[in-house]
Amino acid sequence: MKVFNTAFPYFPNEDIEEILLEVREILEGNKMLTMGENVAKFEEEFATYCATEYAVATNSCTAALEIALATLRLSATDEVVVPVQTFIATGSSVLKAGAKIVFCDVDDNFLLDFAFLKKVITKKTKAVIIVHFAGMISPDILEIKEYLKSKNIALIEDDAHAHGATFGPLKAGNIGDFGCFSFYSTKNMTTGEGGMITLNNKKDYDTCASLRNRGIDTTQKGELFINIGSNHRLTEIQGLLGRYQLKRLEEFVTHRNKIAHIYIEALSDLLKQKRVRIQQPAKNSRHAYWRFLLFLDEAYNRDAIQEKMNAKGIKVDAPYSPLLHKQPLFNSKLIFPHAEKLSKSHISLPIHMLITEDDAHFIVDTLKSLLND
Amino acid sequence: MKVFNTAFPYFPNEDIEEILLEVREILEGNKMLTMGENVAKFEEEFATYCATEYAVATNSCTAALEIALATLRLSATDEVVVPVQTFIATGSSVLKAGAKIVFCDVDDNFLLDFAFLKKVITKKTKAVIIVHFAGMISPDILEIKEYLKSKNIALIEDDAHAHGATFGPLKAGNIGDFGCFSFYSTKNMTTGEGGMITLNNKKDYDTCASLRNRGIDTTQKGELFINIGSNHRLTEIQGLLGRYQLKRLEEFVTHRNKIAHIYIEALSDLLKQKRVRIQQPAKNSRHAYWRFLLFLDEAYNRDAIQEKMNAKGIKVDAPYSPLLHKQPLFNSKLIFPHAEKLSKSHISLPIHMLITEDDAHFIVDTLKSLLND
Repeated sequence: MKVFNTAFPYFPNEDIEEILLEVREILEGNKMLTMGENVAKFEEEFATYCATEYAVATNSCTAALEIALATLRLSATDEVVVPVQTFIATGSSVLKAGAKIVFCDVDDNFLLDFAFLKKVITKKTKAVIIVHFAGMISPDILEIKEYLKSKNIALIEDDAHAHGATFGPLKAGNIGDFGCFSFYSTKNMTTGEGGMITLNNKKDYDTCASLRNRGIDTTQKGELFINIGSNHRLTEIQGLLGRYQLKRLEEFVTHRNKIAHIYIEALSDLLKQKRVRIQQPAKNSRHAYWRFLLFLDEAYNRDAIQEKMNAKGIKVDAPYSPLLHKQPLFNSKLIFPHAEKLSKSHISLPIHMLITEDDAHFIVDTLKSLLND
Repeated sequence: MKVFNTAFPYFPNEDIEEILLEVREILEGNKMLTMGENVAKFEEEFATYCATEYAVATNSCTAALEIALATLRLSATDEVVVPVQTFIATGSSVLKAGAKIVFCDVDDNFLLDFAFLKKVITKKTKAVIIVHFAGMISPDILEIKEYLKSKNIALIEDDAHAHGATFGPLKAGNIGDFGCFSFYSTKNMTTGEGGMITLNNKKDYDTCASLRNRGIDTTQKGELFINIGSNHRLTEIQGLLGRYQLKRLEEFVTHRNKIAHIYIEALSDLLKQKRVRIQQPAKNSRHAYWRFLLFLDEAYNRDAIQEKMNAKGIKVDAPYSPLLHKQPLFNSKLIFPHAEKLSKSHISLPIHMLITEDDAHFIVDTLKSLLND
């Protein structure tokens, strides 16, 4: 039985050959293992891709979020708003920064609910983390940005899913004050583990670069340390992988969109009948499709459908479970009925470079036969 | 002019060929990029090498120190004692843990001064970080260990310099409650960036493993998070490099000792005349010689000697400058006259796998001609 993974990294053969030559150079001592040209160039090239002034490579998106928040120098009474549908790091980074986490409900797209956001903003709100969940940028993003700017609240993008997503002329990572990307092995592009902060403010850039490198004074020669930083550096081999993956990112995102559109096309009847529902990006935006999400009507038994698909070798999951506010770490008694109901209805179909168009037809046909059963 | 670097990574050709085959497997998707067998086996093999029960791989020694301290769950009034001659991370990790740093003077070997330590221990002292500076374990280590145990104070080894150092039957990393290693590119063995925590306590191991992996509950299936952790994971390629380097560690440390003994032999007259001085390890111990340190008599102009050696292509430095308590981060007005005087007198000669016996003779002869000038 052919197995279709939820996510899978992809390095084309011609890239592998070139990468191995470079890795040999590094291991033979002709190039650096760390703090060399690859990470520096990866940062430059990633900033160019996002059209931001600066980029700071980190060893994870978790580190990127932690550094972005540390740059804001928050106190224990400062509040940071975070959507409840996201990975743990979006929330744990707030606690790491020593600030208070404020949970926000999500809309029907699993994206931060703007109306709800306005209700939880207080005078103590110092930042909002917006997650481009599954690779989709909220249709409300410009209004949210404007609203936060008017209140002098920092906007942090959690771009872990959104490499290559666009909104009008803007790339994900060039919308908020900080963009925080992940290059974990399941992501749209990967360095195994890795992350990147994108930003336009020089002062914040200097702080991020310092915090990433153990709090070093980046303006001085020698090793003088001025901030409580850590070692969040990417290795040169990771930087090398990142550069090769970045060259392919447009190709990767194009492929993901092609697979998504096969799914959408095949599901058109079920969509019209409102038996299933998909995320609804704005017309002027491009979804990055880290995940293809499908919300099933209540009439369906989501868990049963998921199990049956998995039994057929089609790995279907439903990120994230539990929702953020239900993680034991936060010890929260809050209830978000909308997000909680929604998170019992969705599945995520395989979508990555190793899913061919034929695979996509097979996957969606298999699903349809279950949904029509 | 041949240039002799202070430190340099080394992968033998036969290892490079095998590593590249494995990297190909990873890039082709046949093996994991992260969270796979290499890191797990590297941990097992490293624990076996150190004869500890457990090992937790991290992406830096800084992270290892931070996690070890976080495991102690310190408060703002808790004190951690740290020697003033060390790298920034030994001290910044204490601030990261939210505790109070207490500086301790060093002895003539640049190691934590036991007599001084006793004077700075208070009822608030929760941990002492001991640095096996340059690769040497203090002759007082067992007395220090016993003393701290009697006071219920944790002993954390900073083993960044000490892979392969031994004291009697004990390996560095198996002396204190936690051993914290670095695999940075200049170290005795390297993964580019990387670290390891070695320990024997199961409960602490579970906490370290959780904190390294974003605070996950390691006892549960699925993704439940119970601690404020971060992503400090090593990639599989780093784990692979580590496994190959670990197999060579005995060979590496033996070579370093051989080079050191060429230096010592050649300097015997100057040593007898007390015009230079070296670290004095206990007879039952093995120095790991991450660095070969030489303390010059006051009559010499250390900076001038250093400059002349560098001008001849022999890279000579004098770690660490400034001393820890003088780093702007700590904003300390304390003065440690002994450490400060000592740190103006030492140099470190090139010692690594690419320094041959002939190189060593050339290097030390060059130095001697300057010292006898």
